[in-house]
Amino acid sequence: MTDPRTKIQLDESALPTQWYNVVADLPAPPPPPLHPATLQPVGPDDLAPLFPMDLILQEVTTQRFVPIPEPVRDVYRLWRPTPLYRARRLEQALGTPARIYYKYEGVSPAGSHKPNTSVPQAYYNAKSGVKKLTTETGAGQWGTALAFACSLFDIECEVWMTRSSYDTKPFRKSIMEIFGATVHRSPSSVTASGRKILADDPESPGSLGIAISEAVEVAAADPGVRYALGSVLNHVLLHQTVIGEEALLQMAEAGDVPDLVVGCTGGGSNFSGLIFPILREKLAGRVGTSFLAVEPSGCPSFTRGRYTYDYGDTAGFTPLMKMHTLGHDFIPDPIHAGGLRYHGMSPLLSHIYELGIFNAVAKPQSECFAAGVLFARTEGIVPAPEPTHALAAVVEEAKRCAETGEDKVILTALCGHGLLDLAAYDSYLAGGVKDVDYPQERVDAALTHLPQIDL
Amino acid sequence: MTDPRTKIQLDESALPTQWYNVVADLPAPPPPPLHPATLQPVGPDDLAPLFPMDLILQEVTTQRFVPIPEPVRDVYRLWRPTPLYRARRLEQALGTPARIYYKYEGVSPAGSHKPNTSVPQAYYNAKSGVKKLTTETGAGQWGTALAFACSLFDIECEVWMTRSSYDTKPFRKSIMEIFGATVHRSPSSVTASGRKILADDPESPGSLGIAISEAVEVAAADPGVRYALGSVLNHVLLHQTVIGEEALLQMAEAGDVPDLVVGCTGGGSNFSGLIFPILREKLAGRVGTSFLAVEPSGCPSFTRGRYTYDYGDTAGFTPLMKMHTLGHDFIPDPIHAGGLRYHGMSPLLSHIYELGIFNAVAKPQSECFAAGVLFARTEGIVPAPEPTHALAAVVEEAKRCAETGEDKVILTALCGHGLLDLAAYDSYLAGGVKDVDYPQERVDAALTHLPQIDL
Repeated sequence: MTDPRTKIQLDESALPTQWYNVVADLPAPPPPPLHPATLQPVGPDDLAPLFPMDLILQEVTTQRFVPIPEPVRDVYRLWRPTPLYRARRLEQALGTPARIYYKYEGVSPAGSHKPNTSVPQAYYNAKSGVKKLTTETGAGQWGTALAFACSLFDIECEVWMTRSSYDTKPFRKSIMEIFGATVHRSPSSVTASGRKILADDPESPGSLGIAISEAVEVAAADPGVRYALGSVLNHVLLHQTVIGEEALLQMAEAGDVPDLVVGCTGGGSNFSGLIFPILREKLAGRVGTSFLAVEPSGCPSFTRGRYTYDYGDTAGFTPLMKMHTLGHDFIPDPIHAGGLRYHGMSPLLSHIYELGIFNAVAKPQSECFAAGVLFARTEGIVPAPEPTHALAAVVEEAKRCAETGEDKVILTALCGHGLLDLAAYDSYLAGGVKDVDYPQERVDAALTHLPQIDL
Repeated sequence: MTDPRTKIQLDESALPTQWYNVVADLPAPPPPPLHPATLQPVGPDDLAPLFPMDLILQEVTTQRFVPIPEPVRDVYRLWRPTPLYRARRLEQALGTPARIYYKYEGVSPAGSHKPNTSVPQAYYNAKSGVKKLTTETGAGQWGTALAFACSLFDIECEVWMTRSSYDTKPFRKSIMEIFGATVHRSPSSVTASGRKILADDPESPGSLGIAISEAVEVAAADPGVRYALGSVLNHVLLHQTVIGEEALLQMAEAGDVPDLVVGCTGGGSNFSGLIFPILREKLAGRVGTSFLAVEPSGCPSFTRGRYTYDYGDTAGFTPLMKMHTLGHDFIPDPIHAGGLRYHGMSPLLSHIYELGIFNAVAKPQSECFAAGVLFARTEGIVPAPEPTHALAAVVEEAKRCAETGEDKVILTALCGHGLLDLAAYDSYLAGGVKDVDYPQERVDAALTHLPQIDL
């Protein structure tokens, strides 16, 4: 018998005490990142100018569990454990026998799952004596999360926000400033790389690649300053596993085992955070769960990209990472889910995909917004554009169950609310959302620009 | 010993089963509303064109407890019970021995306490066969809450939003539309009263009074349509008592008894919802708690207004209510906390104030925003401008305790988050928030326009 409650809310005593490192349980280790000059695996010392040693060691550890420091757990308690909901009203609207659960991360101060990693990143940096963190932000979720974390550990936070977002999403800047951060419109005149771009084109709309260059330039020039990244890297995925650890406890309370877990993927941290602990249970033979990653048709790295070594940024300053990529100079058409608009994919998650452990599908944004509106009108929460991709796949699967009569148990990650992304819904409701689908030739053309290296 | 947790999160099994009606326990009954033509007490039949009978009976009941219908509790479960937080980081920042607790209502789908009443209002209207609800909204919180509730009970929702808000807060309109509501810019051309205003002044910025006239006009003209109000009335305050009932259980779990309860007041429903159940305990001699209402200096109905019969709207269409009022044609200067910008005050709460049961104080908005920013940087939540008024008083009291060494227990109502009000914070951070303080002469001048009635 399943639990009759609408939501399973764990007590603080159930807050995880350790993060889970899936690398320890994989049948093969992920390929290492390579130094762009030497093509040798990157060592801890190569990363030291950008990250504190605690995070570098987490990046490369093969230990199964990593203890969560008490000061980090103490901040997590401001919103964790997050609730697990049974979406009964959505099920009813779909007339499905499927049982749909969602783990809701929008209760965090930043409104998304991002503080799960911004808090430990700020903590380890503060602990190592760092005075300031720099970062880039596109949609604004990551900048908000880092600004929040820095305010709690008394370090400065400087954010480069792509000009197009800076101009169209003024309230994202506002919330970062409330948390005490300094926000620059990127390209900015405070860095050499920004000034160079502006000299060439004073009206440059900016890009995530440019913003990264600016943030990295400032961090690398000052030993008291470091840089922080909100997805893609192993330590980020590690921190996000608190989502899945809690979900395991909550699904057990609910009296159900998920047959299918669905999440959206941009850099991969939200999906990884939910599935890795459940994947551990699957690899140990304790559950038979399937996993589905949902990406936008407008940025289809899993379903259209190539699994190969590529740069993490447009300019080619970062280490080479083996990942699913659309090519580091691939500029996705503007889509409303800015958090999913990255040319690459987490190398660790890419490796697991290549092992055949989960499936991936791409969804056009109009289908995603339709699922988001249905969700809001039944469950009450307005989802961020990113998780509407997962919801679109959930709705599709639940409708299939309505036809077949299968009472499948579906679990999804509702990784944030959309209260700071309402302009995107405006466009959708006004009929102004265009679906983007790349012909394979365009992807293939971008992939001819891959780094020419001989491994 | 007090509970070591950061937040006390009740299980759904602790969700209240009944609302508490403070009228049953008061030493004297509140004066009745009067019919504007006959000056006789308003009877249920007078209200029937606007409200369904279930709500009218709740408006006048003297019963101590009113059962909460199961379909309403079932919707409450989407976000209730709401968490009670111990504000340890704020305490630390203030260096105070006071113990500060806040009951957080921002976890609701609309982001405020308003759905506590919009949901039962939509339920009772749907139950009585009503097909559509009309309402006005100023800041947008109430329109959002009613749109959400109507979407769940499958009734239409039509909202008149004052033009000044409609133009400056486009995302409030967006979220109402996501929930399926129709939103008009008021004055609108779809009502006679709107057209009359527009004929006189096509550029009229609108007012809450005009928007009420439009919503009431549409409701009164069609037996399938009713009107809904988000504060002021007895049944609204009744519904909000779920806040205080939960807080009593949570404070008991926390192992503390509040010495002081602080809340902001606009129409009075948020403050009433928190204090009424605790007031019951005080009237029964079980606790010695004090209560403090905090209003904006820019709309000081308790501290500068008069306790007398006045109209609820500017045009004078509503029943006469005995309340603290600044005069029904008093137009407060623009202040950022739109939810507190009402010329009158709940008649029931006004009556209790006259009984000497609680105190009131007015706060200038710069002090309120300063408290809001401090709160965001310590506790992580960006408060709506309205509850920053309560926070300003809490900060003041906690600082006093730091001087005296008193370990006072303070409980406050954090009635909503500010994620849709960030423009107000922008103004504050840019130094553009002006404090407004009315000279008593201006209030006295407005009060000469009170209805000339002989009781």
